[in-house]
Amino acid sequence: MAAEFDIVIRSGRVVTSGDQFVADIGIKDGVVAAIGSGITSGKQDIDASGRLVLPGGVDNHVHIEQISASGLLNADDWESATRAAAFGGNTTVIAFAAQHAGMNLCKVVDDYHALARKGAVIDYSFHLIIADPNSQTLGHDLPALLDRGYQSVKLFTTYDKLKIDDESFLDILQITGTRGGLVSVHAENHGMIKWRTKSLVASGHTAPLAHAMAHPREAEIDAIDRVIRMAALTGQPIMIFHVSTAEGAEIVRQARSRGQSVHAETCPHYLLLTEAAMDRPMPEGAMWMCSPPLRRESDGEALWAALAGGVLQMVSSDHAPYAYDSSGKLRAGPMPRFDQIPGGLPGIGLRLPLMFDEMVRRGLPLEKFVEWTSAAPAKLYGLYPRKGSIVVGADADIAIWNPKARRRVGHDIILDRTGYSPYQDRILNGWPETVLLRGEVIVRQGSVTGQQGSGQFLVQDRCGSGLRDHRAVV
Amino acid sequence: MAAEFDIVIRSGRVVTSGDQFVADIGIKDGVVAAIGSGITSGKQDIDASGRLVLPGGVDNHVHIEQISASGLLNADDWESATRAAAFGGNTTVIAFAAQHAGMNLCKVVDDYHALARKGAVIDYSFHLIIADPNSQTLGHDLPALLDRGYQSVKLFTTYDKLKIDDESFLDILQITGTRGGLVSVHAENHGMIKWRTKSLVASGHTAPLAHAMAHPREAEIDAIDRVIRMAALTGQPIMIFHVSTAEGAEIVRQARSRGQSVHAETCPHYLLLTEAAMDRPMPEGAMWMCSPPLRRESDGEALWAALAGGVLQMVSSDHAPYAYDSSGKLRAGPMPRFDQIPGGLPGIGLRLPLMFDEMVRRGLPLEKFVEWTSAAPAKLYGLYPRKGSIVVGADADIAIWNPKARRRVGHDIILDRTGYSPYQDRILNGWPETVLLRGEVIVRQGSVTGQQGSGQFLVQDRCGSGLRDHRAVV
Amino acid sequence: MAAEFDIVIRSGRVVTSGDQFVADIGIKDGVVAAIGSGITSGKQDIDASGRLVLPGGVDNHVHIEQISASGLLNADDWESATRAAAFGGNTTVIAFAAQHAGMNLCKVVDDYHALARKGAVIDYSFHLIIADPNSQTLGHDLPALLDRGYQSVKLFTTYDKLKIDDESFLDILQITGTRGGLVSVHAENHGMIKWRTKSLVASGHTAPLAHAMAHPREAEIDAIDRVIRMAALTGQPIMIFHVSTAEGAEIVRQARSRGQSVHAETCPHYLLLTEAAMDRPMPEGAMWMCSPPLRRESDGEALWAALAGGVLQMVSSDHAPYAYDSSGKLRAGPMPRFDQIPGGLPGIGLRLPLMFDEMVRRGLPLEKFVEWTSAAPAKLYGLYPRKGSIVVGADADIAIWNPKARRRVGHDIILDRTGYSPYQDRILNGWPETVLLRGEVIVRQGSVTGQQGSGQFLVQDRCGSGLRDHRAVV
Amino acid sequence: MAAEFDIVIRSGRVVTSGDQFVADIGIKDGVVAAIGSGITSGKQDIDASGRLVLPGGVDNHVHIEQISASGLLNADDWESATRAAAFGGNTTVIAFAAQHAGMNLCKVVDDYHALARKGAVIDYSFHLIIADPNSQTLGHDLPALLDRGYQSVKLFTTYDKLKIDDESFLDILQITGTRGGLVSVHAENHGMIKWRTKSLVASGHTAPLAHAMAHPREAEIDAIDRVIRMAALTGQPIMIFHVSTAEGAEIVRQARSRGQSVHAETCPHYLLLTEAAMDRPMPEGAMWMCSPPLRRESDGEALWAALAGGVLQMVSSDHAPYAYDSSGKLRAGPMPRFDQIPGGLPGIGLRLPLMFDEMVRRGLPLEKFVEWTSAAPAKLYGLYPRKGSIVVGADADIAIWNPKARRRVGHDIILDRTGYSPYQDRILNGWPETVLLRGEVIVRQGSVTGQQGSGQFLVQDRCGSGLRDHRAVV
Repeated sequence: MAAEFDIVIRSGRVVTSGDQFVADIGIKDGVVAAIGSGITSGKQDIDASGRLVLPGGVDNHVHIEQISASGLLNADDWESATRAAAFGGNTTVIAFAAQHAGMNLCKVVDDYHALARKGAVIDYSFHLIIADPNSQTLGHDLPALLDRGYQSVKLFTTYDKLKIDDESFLDILQITGTRGGLVSVHAENHGMIKWRTKSLVASGHTAPLAHAMAHPREAEIDAIDRVIRMAALTGQPIMIFHVSTAEGAEIVRQARSRGQSVHAETCPHYLLLTEAAMDRPMPEGAMWMCSPPLRRESDGEALWAALAGGVLQMVSSDHAPYAYDSSGKLRAGPMPRFDQIPGGLPGIGLRLPLMFDEMVRRGLPLEKFVEWTSAAPAKLYGLYPRKGSIVVGADADIAIWNPKARRRVGHDIILDRTGYSPYQDRILNGWPETVLLRGEVIVRQGSVTGQQGSGQFLVQDRCGSGLRDHRAVV
Repeated sequence: MAAEFDIVIRSGRVVTSGDQFVADIGIKDGVVAAIGSGITSGKQDIDASGRLVLPGGVDNHVHIEQISASGLLNADDWESATRAAAFGGNTTVIAFAAQHAGMNLCKVVDDYHALARKGAVIDYSFHLIIADPNSQTLGHDLPALLDRGYQSVKLFTTYDKLKIDDESFLDILQITGTRGGLVSVHAENHGMIKWRTKSLVASGHTAPLAHAMAHPREAEIDAIDRVIRMAALTGQPIMIFHVSTAEGAEIVRQARSRGQSVHAETCPHYLLLTEAAMDRPMPEGAMWMCSPPLRRESDGEALWAALAGGVLQMVSSDHAPYAYDSSGKLRAGPMPRFDQIPGGLPGIGLRLPLMFDEMVRRGLPLEKFVEWTSAAPAKLYGLYPRKGSIVVGADADIAIWNPKARRRVGHDIILDRTGYSPYQDRILNGWPETVLLRGEVIVRQGSVTGQQGSGQFLVQDRCGSGLRDHRAVV
Repeated sequence: MAAEFDIVIRSGRVVTSGDQFVADIGIKDGVVAAIGSGITSGKQDIDASGRLVLPGGVDNHVHIEQISASGLLNADDWESATRAAAFGGNTTVIAFAAQHAGMNLCKVVDDYHALARKGAVIDYSFHLIIADPNSQTLGHDLPALLDRGYQSVKLFTTYDKLKIDDESFLDILQITGTRGGLVSVHAENHGMIKWRTKSLVASGHTAPLAHAMAHPREAEIDAIDRVIRMAALTGQPIMIFHVSTAEGAEIVRQARSRGQSVHAETCPHYLLLTEAAMDRPMPEGAMWMCSPPLRRESDGEALWAALAGGVLQMVSSDHAPYAYDSSGKLRAGPMPRFDQIPGGLPGIGLRLPLMFDEMVRRGLPLEKFVEWTSAAPAKLYGLYPRKGSIVVGADADIAIWNPKARRRVGHDIILDRTGYSPYQDRILNGWPETVLLRGEVIVRQGSVTGQQGSGQFLVQDRCGSGLRDHRAVV
Repeated sequence: MAAEFDIVIRSGRVVTSGDQFVADIGIKDGVVAAIGSGITSGKQDIDASGRLVLPGGVDNHVHIEQISASGLLNADDWESATRAAAFGGNTTVIAFAAQHAGMNLCKVVDDYHALARKGAVIDYSFHLIIADPNSQTLGHDLPALLDRGYQSVKLFTTYDKLKIDDESFLDILQITGTRGGLVSVHAENHGMIKWRTKSLVASGHTAPLAHAMAHPREAEIDAIDRVIRMAALTGQPIMIFHVSTAEGAEIVRQARSRGQSVHAETCPHYLLLTEAAMDRPMPEGAMWMCSPPLRRESDGEALWAALAGGVLQMVSSDHAPYAYDSSGKLRAGPMPRFDQIPGGLPGIGLRLPLMFDEMVRRGLPLEKFVEWTSAAPAKLYGLYPRKGSIVVGADADIAIWNPKARRRVGHDIILDRTGYSPYQDRILNGWPETVLLRGEVIVRQGSVTGQQGSGQFLVQDRCGSGLRDHRAVV
């Protein structure tokens, strides 16, 4: 072997979505050049004995520097969000380029590119949010962007200014799918939420816990059902974001067992927390408000089973950061009504440690940890084999975990700018001590060394991926 | 890297159950020593450019030199069976050590060892068939063998001389499972088969096609259901052999979704053939008789869906070779009654080419081909990571496939001794041109070079495997 | 017994939803006064030996003299529709009082009352169609009408001028249910239909058969699912009109098995015809166009099973009569595009004979015929025990059937004004030769003797009915 | 009407399985001669104003004077059992004629006839228990008895001396079904029970509560599944006795929805009690031991839902009376091991009052009370229309209930000879104060006036019944 590796990660236990073995990894020019035993030293050697050597995490659902229809901005910018991501073992994020009414979609993409280019510490790609499906958007901009490698579209079935009616939804599914793209959906029934919110407010239920009642499980179940049927009608694939209910997962399962190309994810908070977290003295519960809301313990167990059975394929953070102050959660005042509180939890930094800790506790194999948090999103969104595994030729995006590290959730390990964590004081076993992005060490000994602006944009190439949509049930 | 590989397989597209990438593979001392790009030459270089480099197949269900309760012997001995297996891309088989009434189980194991040691061209392990669950067997021999690394037991719910009653079945599940072993089952309801056979013979239905009616789908469905419930009662894992019906697969799915440790396989003939094959002028249809019998096209599709959804985890051959002459299928005469014909299809040699061809046709990923035919059986039966993947440290069991090779099923590619193939004249795309066992080339250019007796016995170590039983639903 | 019956129906086989027996029926003052054997003669005796004596049919879903949003009028007026109904064995219909945008709901009810009062030959009640859910309608008129005994509301999820958005739908469910009323629904997804219609027209598919594609089964499935979930959210009962798909029925079944108060009906055309009927030289197929459209044979079988299993409780005609001329089906010209053809089949007259004939052919009990076509709708809509059975105290609404009569469908037995029948030339076994309404003979020997205007309005009293909503699963 | 009724029951609220109305009932020569309002007085008038007039109960599953394989005799003889039945509102029972190994089936029938003829206070019929399926039994006696109107056979899948193997079970299903008969089954897996019992005893779990563990729910689920599949294989109907688990009911539901002729019942104790009742100081819990055992509260709720959905069609007592002394429950001594205690609960007397009380509490309609406890068993077992309803021509078997009566369960209202009640001290609302058998008052003001030996044997005529097997799903 022509040797002279830039870096050699030595003697670690390598884990991919399919295998687990002890080996050395030789990195050259930012990619994995060799995996072997006893390979020659590189310019730099990293001793990984007793450590796990995993692909860097791919977080396929994060909101960064995204402006809401009502002008609210996330607490994080690209620099803070991706620093937090890197610190937690990630090397890739897929964020949003969000159109609002009246905006030109191509211009939207350019604007978000500028923000990411300036701040990103790790690599990134975009989902295109369409909120104004006019003829310019659907007839011109969307097809053009799909052809240029923006192969992911996100739609909403709820929120006054974001929801897409069924007829337009079908149009977008058709346009996107026939060009190799994928539509991902926030699926909740808008009318049900409005009706419940109206009733709750009218009857004086205004505390944060009312948020769970205002977003009834029927709203998610109905919308998941409908978007899957719309996808079936068009014959195109679909991805369901943040499944939170047992019934939602069951609908996904049934569609997949019919051979339909339906994908789905959930998030750590639906696996680890319950709506009881919102039941605190007002307005503290606001810190646990997100949409869909936290559910019951039995839903969490059903989601674990759905992951295990392949019904859900991945776990994203849905990082949606709002500070617990007047810039975010409390923008409507110190004692806001539940429907005036921005929904969203911070999560980009702890997604991997939380999942690692809990999966080990449950006796789930590490291969599945890699699959759910890195390999599967990379494959679905057209980033594999560059991202998502440790194989010869892949980007050397690697997180070296110490399975025996033990951290308590607190401000020292949370780098995002929300100022709080829904998991405060939880003890986590396992931590990604060292992280490499394309062969560069970006986290070393708990310190982020990666530079803002060093992240690269990733063109999506779903047709070249190992897991194409038309192979949905696999 | 310290180089000096014994063999380098160069520039092939490596496929494992999780990944796919182009690389060179360096082999030393029979194991995979390095995977990289541009690694130094070995003592021998094999050019695999334009080829697929896959783990050797692991066929976990084959009958070799096995004597039936009625004294019938398979057409194959260890040499002929494993030569055929190697030629078809396999490097490991798991065969049977079959007890009959009155036999000492330890002695049975010794006897089968002697046969395999003499003939095996590839590596092997055993399932212990228990047909005499007396106190010596259950109280002494079985526990002792389990502790010595024979971690797989096979039971029957049918056949007069093999079937185990429910109470003994529960005893064996308990003894086996608590020692880390696994019970695999041939699941068909005995009474239903006897009743139907009696009725059919009485009404003059004696042609081979009557075999399908004599083994009604209800018989399989009932027995699968019952053995899964018995496993639930004991809290131990179970493996269902050769699932042939849609309903059978659905029962497995439901059990797995409840979190029960249930595994299942099917075979190529249930995926590719139907009972219509038996409907030929008597007695030709005998060549397609096996138990459970071939079913309907809709069952085949349901089984493909069950594989895709992870309900079935692997595809074995259930190689049960009987010649189409008076030594086998026609032992009761030239025009036998269906219930006098030995059941069983030859399949050890074509399992992999048949699956490769069909999976490519269906657009299924090669990673799944590796998983279903090599990685999953190796993991379930405790042979991984030595077998089942191409990773540093694993046995260099490798099949180099030419995806563009095109073969017609005929005597030149069937090496077993049955003298016929159920797939005669089928065109197959893709062929394993070169096969290595622990770094030795045992098939080269369509010629088996491996020597009889060179296969090694494999001790099972299910607790060390990547996919342990208690992780069933994964 | 105080005897002196006005009429005695003698020696017939009486059939109710629960029993079957031979007896005489004594009628006095319009009600059933006695059931016995050998009761004394009345002023008039009707010999029913060899005949079946059944409760008059209750058709709970008919469109009569109803003006569509686009100004289209049904082919029938109250006189012609109810004469046809009586001739076919019915004594009660529930028609519609249909609001359109801008109309005052109370005024709508008054207007429809005037039409019915003038023309009705048999008894009747109304469903209130709400298309303008403004504050006057929901806050004042609807509650007032519910309290006055108009306990049935009908809503649409489709049609541009009729569809109710989810939030208003929930409001109406709540208002209606809490006052003891019931919401019935035409459930199809509007966006799916519009999208498909747009695609079909764009690609030149304009023949009647395209109507089946323009109303995909997913549209019905989705809407049934959603309205049932909305009903669950409010805790109020719901009735699904004209279920046409196997999946739709399955959704109803699941809801009922969860204990939800969900009711459902189907119609003879979904049980007896298929979409193939529309595949005729244009525009003849228009005669079979209705919404939801005719489906597949397998759907019909699933609907029969759903009736048998109690998932569907009744069979209405959904009589929606449009003549096959420029006043109706061909109003857009002699060769209309499928989406310009009014949907609807005539059916008020043949509902009972068609069901009787087919149920006898299938070996289904006559008790079920009575239940599905008379007892169940009478109970659900608050007309029982006055209507729906033959018991002491009930209105003497009786149809005397000759089970051996044999009629061919043709103009002599169709009395509605559409001028055609979707069942032309079908042979029907069994016919209601004599019909009594409140003890008056209104059909005698195939001749309608009832007078227009003699029908009475029926106030609904769902709380007094034998089958109340909160007993849904029964 | 020719009047001169023997008895007139005046002004009661008559309830049948289909209707509910206020009327007078005129009885003559033991049958219902007229139902009307204001009918002339009979020789005797019974004022039923404010009372419910219901068909007498039909208890289709009672053990009376039956000798077990081990020689144990029930606590009740025909006189005591049927007096208790009458007192509780019943007019018909179906008991067992039980063959044991070596017995001639025709002789068995004669013997049980003699006992019933002597003691029965109410009418009766038999199920034939077959335990020795030899050629005399199956080839001669069973066909002969079926042809003579013994149309019901009962089989066991468990108990050492009663269980029938699958092949014989299929033979009996075929013989019985093709002659119009029906096989009813006690369905529990024998091996599972033996294995669990062995384990429990070995580990020192010998208290009554261990009985619930020794009869695991899997044993019932497995056996119900298997017998339904065997019935499917033969194309013959089947009846599942005493379904006790949610899963068992679900299996029945699925079979029925496939159109299979499967019937099923449950008993009051599975609806009203749970296994917790057995958890008392030894050996008191023995009083609640029966097979299948009492289950969980969630099972009870599932069984109520299954009744409501028509999955289960009737509720029998499974009266199996053993005194709580050395003649019965304690025959093995004062502190018996759980597997030495005879299983069975007394229930013939309180079945109707318990069901009435609970159904009213749950808001279930009285029509369903009549259907589940009288009409449905009469129809299934070929006793309708003579039994099971109040219609002209039927036997005047009538129970007049006071819905406002309030009784506490205690020795004054229990007339069987077990000496205890599993429902001791429960308050019951509603009581059958007066009972008539074929027009004779057999219970008056809480006193049984019927004479032993006055009950009549009922020939079964399933083909003439209103609900024949081939109409299973109805």
